[in-house]
Amino acid sequence: MAQDAVALIGLDWGTSSLRAYRLGAGGGIVEVRESPAGILGVEAGGFEAAFEAAIGDWLGDSPAAPVVASGMITSRQGWVEVPYLGCPAGEAALARALRAHRTGAGRHVHFVPGLALDGDGVPDVMRGEETQVIGALDGARDARLFLLPGTHSKWVLAENGRIAWFATFMTGELFAVLKDHSILGRPMAGAAHDADAFARGLGLGGLDDPGAGGLLKRLFSARTRHLAGELPADAVASYLSGLLIGAELREATACVGERAARAPLTVIGADALAERYLAAAALNDLEAARGPAHAVARGHWRLARAAGLIAKAAA
Amino acid sequence: MAQDAVALIGLDWGTSSLRAYRLGAGGGIVEVRESPAGILGVEAGGFEAAFEAAIGDWLGDSPAAPVVASGMITSRQGWVEVPYLGCPAGEAALARALRAHRTGAGRHVHFVPGLALDGDGVPDVMRGEETQVIGALDGARDARLFLLPGTHSKWVLAENGRIAWFATFMTGELFAVLKDHSILGRPMAGAAHDADAFARGLGLGGLDDPGAGGLLKRLFSARTRHLAGELPADAVASYLSGLLIGAELREATACVGERAARAPLTVIGADALAERYLAAAALNDLEAARGPAHAVARGHWRLARAAGLIAKAAA
Repeated sequence: MAQDAVALIGLDWGTSSLRAYRLGAGGGIVEVRESPAGILGVEAGGFEAAFEAAIGDWLGDSPAAPVVASGMITSRQGWVEVPYLGCPAGEAALARALRAHRTGAGRHVHFVPGLALDGDGVPDVMRGEETQVIGALDGARDARLFLLPGTHSKWVLAENGRIAWFATFMTGELFAVLKDHSILGRPMAGAAHDADAFARGLGLGGLDDPGAGGLLKRLFSARTRHLAGELPADAVASYLSGLLIGAELREATACVGERAARAPLTVIGADALAERYLAAAALNDLEAARGPAHAVARGHWRLARAAGLIAKAAA
Repeated sequence: MAQDAVALIGLDWGTSSLRAYRLGAGGGIVEVRESPAGILGVEAGGFEAAFEAAIGDWLGDSPAAPVVASGMITSRQGWVEVPYLGCPAGEAALARALRAHRTGAGRHVHFVPGLALDGDGVPDVMRGEETQVIGALDGARDARLFLLPGTHSKWVLAENGRIAWFATFMTGELFAVLKDHSILGRPMAGAAHDADAFARGLGLGGLDDPGAGGLLKRLFSARTRHLAGELPADAVASYLSGLLIGAELREATACVGERAARAPLTVIGADALAERYLAAAALNDLEAARGPAHAVARGHWRLARAAGLIAKAAA
């Protein structure tokens, strides 16, 4: 197999989008393709058609390349439901648990299971983030803390190359429902990020201000500060974002607590939201670094290789 | 004026409803009437018509009875905007600040101003609850803590007969938007209250469980416990309610803290929601009593009397 041949196709198939990767020998990214065909946009029974529509040409071009898929596509609402794997779990356990599915056209898709954790008696789950973390670790075995912002923000602690603990925070979804459906969203105007308002929200919701009450009380300040003329309409959304992200940083660092007081924090993501988290961490004197771009594709690669799916010449 | 004549008409005019009271000599309630004509249901310029539609017959029957109105009707979106009064404020200050408005038909309506507080640099506001608290106090001057559950739950500390401090918690609105618009609401089924699920939510969000993380993390447990088969669809709403009310109790008691460690807690309200708060307080070993029914009408009475609006024979 030539160096530039496609050695693996990786699919990051989530709720609202599908991102597909063509990886060459050694796991380098050859091509990335995005589609809005997230699982909520595909009708039951329509996943194989969506799969062909998204990457049918790639499949034809590289008939021998294995396909690995991760994300909500393995949930009950997805294509093939795969049971959660328990924690701790690392590359080897995830690779062993890959679920192979043969499509009508005879192609095999290898689905990555999500992870479940019994967190002090309260279950927690993830689907897709485990692959991102495996990719970001890229074989490292020292203790590391990962933050994956989003609708349901995940904090993930890796030790000895395995995912040992994680917790989910509903920050992104709470922001969305409050913006679109609560009294806080009513005056919101303008889409531009207001860094000052964001920092003000952070200050109130942040690590340094335990006297300002908890989240249920702080949220109302987005209303009253606007009413009092302290917060213009085009700054309310950024203020609310700061308030919520600040609360998440405070909650999460308290949760992580003794588990990983010294593990460095890595934010996975390359979008504006990851930027906000990095800014929030800096404003709270939390050391945080940006993780590698396209960590998920690196995760697909590492899992496929650990499972023996990659042709020897390409691995 | 005979003992059974109407001495005052009181209006509790909020966002989503209007409750009207006819009070006799001495302030006893003669009649209560409810209308769905909350301020969100009345178009700008339509308040006098809504007023006449709701109680025109009462006005005609008692041409000399003063009318006192409290609630969101004094907000910018209401009939007559009245500026907030600062805290501390009691009966005398509120009575002095009543805003008289003459209707087109020549009747005077006396509007009760809301209260504003500069709470450690974060403004907080109320409209309507001040009148309920004045009524519940009914002249008492010892320190008391009031809890008024609702869309925006209020905790109010009264000292020396005046409202000295208060705080707002967005508990009710958060419950509503999460139920109607978030992933947590998707499986919700059945309208019956599930006391066990409520208690389980409380336990996780309650005073006794600081290790379970903050609200952003706890909220997700309503999802994961359902996914894990620990929480049936018809129990999710009650669980979420317990989670949020428990978080409010925890936040609020921390806020009140040294301000009023020993002030007894009174829950104002006679509906199912007030019942839930009383149950939540009991489960958290917080002593709480139910306040008087129709406290707002007692507040209207006390303010009208303090303002000299009540005929001498009736006062």
